[in-house]
Amino acid sequence: MAKKILVIGGVACGPKAAARARRLDPEAQITIVERGSEISYGACGLPFYLEGEIKDIRELTSTPVGVPRNVGFFKAVKGVDVKINTEAVAINRDKKSVTVKNLESGETGELEYDKLVIATGSAPVRPPIPGIELEGIHCLKTMDDGSAIKAAMEGAQGRTAVIVGGGLIGLECVEPLLNAGFKVHIVEKLPFVLPALLDEEMAKPLMGHLKAKGVTLHCGDGVEAFEGGGNGRVAKIKTEQTSIETDLVILAIGFRPVTDLAQAAGLDVGRMGIKVDAYMRTSDPDIYAGGDCVESWNIVAGAPMYAPMGSTANKHGRVIGNNLCGWSSTFSGVCGTGVCRIMGFNIARTGLTERDARAAGLDVITVLAPGPDRPHYMAESKPIHMKLVAESYTGRLLGVQVLGPGEVLSRVDTMAALLKMGGTIDDLADTDMAYAPPFSPAIDNLITAAHIIQNKRDGLIRSYTPAQLKEKLDRGEDMVLLDVRTPKELEMMSLPYKEVVHIPLGKVREKASELPKDKEIVCLCKISLRGYEAARMLLGAGFDRDRIIMLDGGILAWPYEKNVNA
Amino acid sequence: MAKKILVIGGVACGPKAAARARRLDPEAQITIVERGSEISYGACGLPFYLEGEIKDIRELTSTPVGVPRNVGFFKAVKGVDVKINTEAVAINRDKKSVTVKNLESGETGELEYDKLVIATGSAPVRPPIPGIELEGIHCLKTMDDGSAIKAAMEGAQGRTAVIVGGGLIGLECVEPLLNAGFKVHIVEKLPFVLPALLDEEMAKPLMGHLKAKGVTLHCGDGVEAFEGGGNGRVAKIKTEQTSIETDLVILAIGFRPVTDLAQAAGLDVGRMGIKVDAYMRTSDPDIYAGGDCVESWNIVAGAPMYAPMGSTANKHGRVIGNNLCGWSSTFSGVCGTGVCRIMGFNIARTGLTERDARAAGLDVITVLAPGPDRPHYMAESKPIHMKLVAESYTGRLLGVQVLGPGEVLSRVDTMAALLKMGGTIDDLADTDMAYAPPFSPAIDNLITAAHIIQNKRDGLIRSYTPAQLKEKLDRGEDMVLLDVRTPKELEMMSLPYKEVVHIPLGKVREKASELPKDKEIVCLCKISLRGYEAARMLLGAGFDRDRIIMLDGGILAWPYEKNVNA
Repeated sequence: MAKKILVIGGVACGPKAAARARRLDPEAQITIVERGSEISYGACGLPFYLEGEIKDIRELTSTPVGVPRNVGFFKAVKGVDVKINTEAVAINRDKKSVTVKNLESGETGELEYDKLVIATGSAPVRPPIPGIELEGIHCLKTMDDGSAIKAAMEGAQGRTAVIVGGGLIGLECVEPLLNAGFKVHIVEKLPFVLPALLDEEMAKPLMGHLKAKGVTLHCGDGVEAFEGGGNGRVAKIKTEQTSIETDLVILAIGFRPVTDLAQAAGLDVGRMGIKVDAYMRTSDPDIYAGGDCVESWNIVAGAPMYAPMGSTANKHGRVIGNNLCGWSSTFSGVCGTGVCRIMGFNIARTGLTERDARAAGLDVITVLAPGPDRPHYMAESKPIHMKLVAESYTGRLLGVQVLGPGEVLSRVDTMAALLKMGGTIDDLADTDMAYAPPFSPAIDNLITAAHIIQNKRDGLIRSYTPAQLKEKLDRGEDMVLLDVRTPKELEMMSLPYKEVVHIPLGKVREKASELPKDKEIVCLCKISLRGYEAARMLLGAGFDRDRIIMLDGGILAWPYEKNVNA
Repeated sequence: MAKKILVIGGVACGPKAAARARRLDPEAQITIVERGSEISYGACGLPFYLEGEIKDIRELTSTPVGVPRNVGFFKAVKGVDVKINTEAVAINRDKKSVTVKNLESGETGELEYDKLVIATGSAPVRPPIPGIELEGIHCLKTMDDGSAIKAAMEGAQGRTAVIVGGGLIGLECVEPLLNAGFKVHIVEKLPFVLPALLDEEMAKPLMGHLKAKGVTLHCGDGVEAFEGGGNGRVAKIKTEQTSIETDLVILAIGFRPVTDLAQAAGLDVGRMGIKVDAYMRTSDPDIYAGGDCVESWNIVAGAPMYAPMGSTANKHGRVIGNNLCGWSSTFSGVCGTGVCRIMGFNIARTGLTERDARAAGLDVITVLAPGPDRPHYMAESKPIHMKLVAESYTGRLLGVQVLGPGEVLSRVDTMAALLKMGGTIDDLADTDMAYAPPFSPAIDNLITAAHIIQNKRDGLIRSYTPAQLKEKLDRGEDMVLLDVRTPKELEMMSLPYKEVVHIPLGKVREKASELPKDKEIVCLCKISLRGYEAARMLLGAGFDRDRIIMLDGGILAWPYEKNVNA
């Protein structure tokens, strides 16, 4: 008899698993139940619908040639029955059935399965803040959310919009709102934006970019209440530190896995989603789960993580489809890769941040490596800033953060591949990355970062991070900040400390004897390549190994106050 | 006593090795001899100087902050003595010295070394074609070449320029010449352009692009003679098949390693350059060599190759610098990565082409995977075309070719990292590549390609390459070409064969019984995702496994004649 495959959830992982299963097993009876009225849509495109790059929201539910991916399409093309507006209300594991309810008619029924797929996805976090039920407070998750926000964006001039949550979705809403004419505020509980993706020092340049574009940031501030204007609509946000008048709020403080059904059915559920093994099988061998509702495995941390990504959901769906049909297949895990673009500023991360890595108990070595994304002589060259994190003893790569106006995708993807394979900094240094001036420098930024970490590992150079140096300066430690840039560069930008001594690199050999031998000398330049060179000169000139330090990332990576005459 | 390090060659690998050695050994006496008058210049930037993106050719010899990298700079900043206009004429290994000649004064002398570095680079191939000595026939290798071509480009309107050689350098000259106003011809001995980087089927779209931009291609044609106009200047090129009147020829038929010195000194020299081990050591342990003059190791082929690239030369220099100073260090080899952009069309390759792989005796599995580089609903989405090559039995990745108006860098670099680590198609399928609509599709093109190869490997689908199908059609084999696209798509573009049967994908299940069971049915769509789906439907409907085939890459990847009504 034909195998009965039942899939709960019709957005990404569910339809993918169903379609794959159909291609592998022409006999199977495959059914998807979906609570909403839309299936198989590109939810990640919603910010670009708000922005106007996508003119018609229906494009998100169509194939590339414009065929709507609706119930009829799934029947005719995929050979899959889809029941929309149908909620799965209980999984009856003993009977191998699912109780479903038609949300329009209210009728309930039971669907049997041989194999079940739970792809219930995620839901936006909506904390019980007073006033959260007011109109004008939107999440961005579904097609309906997208349409509602788009409608609420009409007549933006002079209005204020507040984004609550400085994560990926919140930041992706900045550009549409700004371009529409809103004054935009972001309220983020943590002291910096994109806290799940970036270390604080890497978030600083992004925050500078947002401020430069006119966004008002309230970081380290939490929402206490939403207040209505008497008409049931939000009129004001009260935070711990301020209040903002607004009639449009985007609530983007994260997603949580939808696990109630699984939990009620007695399946293992972890803190970060339904537990699955590498076959995407739950604790019941006849039930698979994938997409935003499951706990992912972070291959770098060797620990579970929550990683709700469309890319991962599709990979899960394919693996589940295989296993449903006896093609034994595994998914090896994720690296926590993420990328976004905000008003011409790109941000990408894969693997662990320094904070993640230290929290996982790892001993890390890091580097800040800002630089142009192409040879400096190319007109199209743009800056990017990079932080590379590796394990100290083994040199195993742990993660990278890359951001700036320049190219970030190739760097983050290269690292994702190396992380997949367990590569080290020596592997990275020898990776044959593509080079041509319209694309990248002869020594790619990622390889430069690997070289600097090698130098640190090999004891060729000691360094301070900006935070370490700042702390010492704030404590009033007696030291020299040796700035080896050209006089012109110094005039344009400098560190505002009396400890700064300026000797252009070309004079360092000659003037080394004028520098004190009994103080720490922190060498720096724009990005600390010349700073490193100066440090090696001083070490070569007999200065004490413990007193010669390089400032990581140079003045470009200095996230604190600096004198600027641009 | 201070170690004497002598470096022959001052462009890329040589200065890098010298500077690295200085940073590691402050005592060493380090000297570079360079035959030319320029050192440490960005030769790869020359085409962009011709194009005008770089305004002043001096930018190629300056640091990012505008400091000229000249003899004084190397002395003051790097602590390295550079002798320009000085040719190394003999290596006296018994005496550990090099005989040098000052090319201005004609004086000769001898320089002693403890460790020697040969970084003599490459020279353009100049075959003994009649007339090759005529004025107006330029190579593009040195700063002087760049200046000479730039001068010869004055007053381009109405003139014709001929590029001899359709490799990387030749193609990089297309844009500057076209933009300046030249009529441009390319003469390439092989039947297609970029033969060292691409398989013929992948070169076809690039050739189409060049033709569309107005370039006249003479592929499969060789130069027989250059004829002068009586004034010592070239006036005409005679090829095997035609003749072209021209007064500007760019000779770009490749580079050869400069190995005469090494050879004369009795060092091991291979067909593709000076032989070095992983320490970049020649057959004499006191002599290192790196950059364009050495034979590289291709880690994918497990065989030597010639890979003259600025990126590799810099890596060599660092490793040599380490080893000169006792920091034992190795270079693991290259993948033959290359990238270029020609009038908005990007081309990238890493690893082996199918032709390379077959020539190396490997049993390969390949896929053609064209598609948009971002989700189809994004306005900035652009097409790219991809060919992925893997080893049949093991699934080990062998190489990728990516080209088109869309993004290629992240794809080629991701593959380069996987090739470095010996990754398989299953590793690629699980690589956590970055996804967001402004950057990439939820399932990256590279991962789609891995999925298709998995399907082939697992026996889910058989396929024909365009060449295989063409051959069968030309032989008049009786078959069905089942095109499952929409009627609108069919109207815009179709295969010009009577064998075409059109059934839109949504009708295939219903109309399967109308198709013949005793003929081969080749399923296709735009890119063969739907073609694959149709094939699986037919197999599910009981059609013979041997008679259901997918056309690799669909109609988009069909490099032969097609009906187009755009």
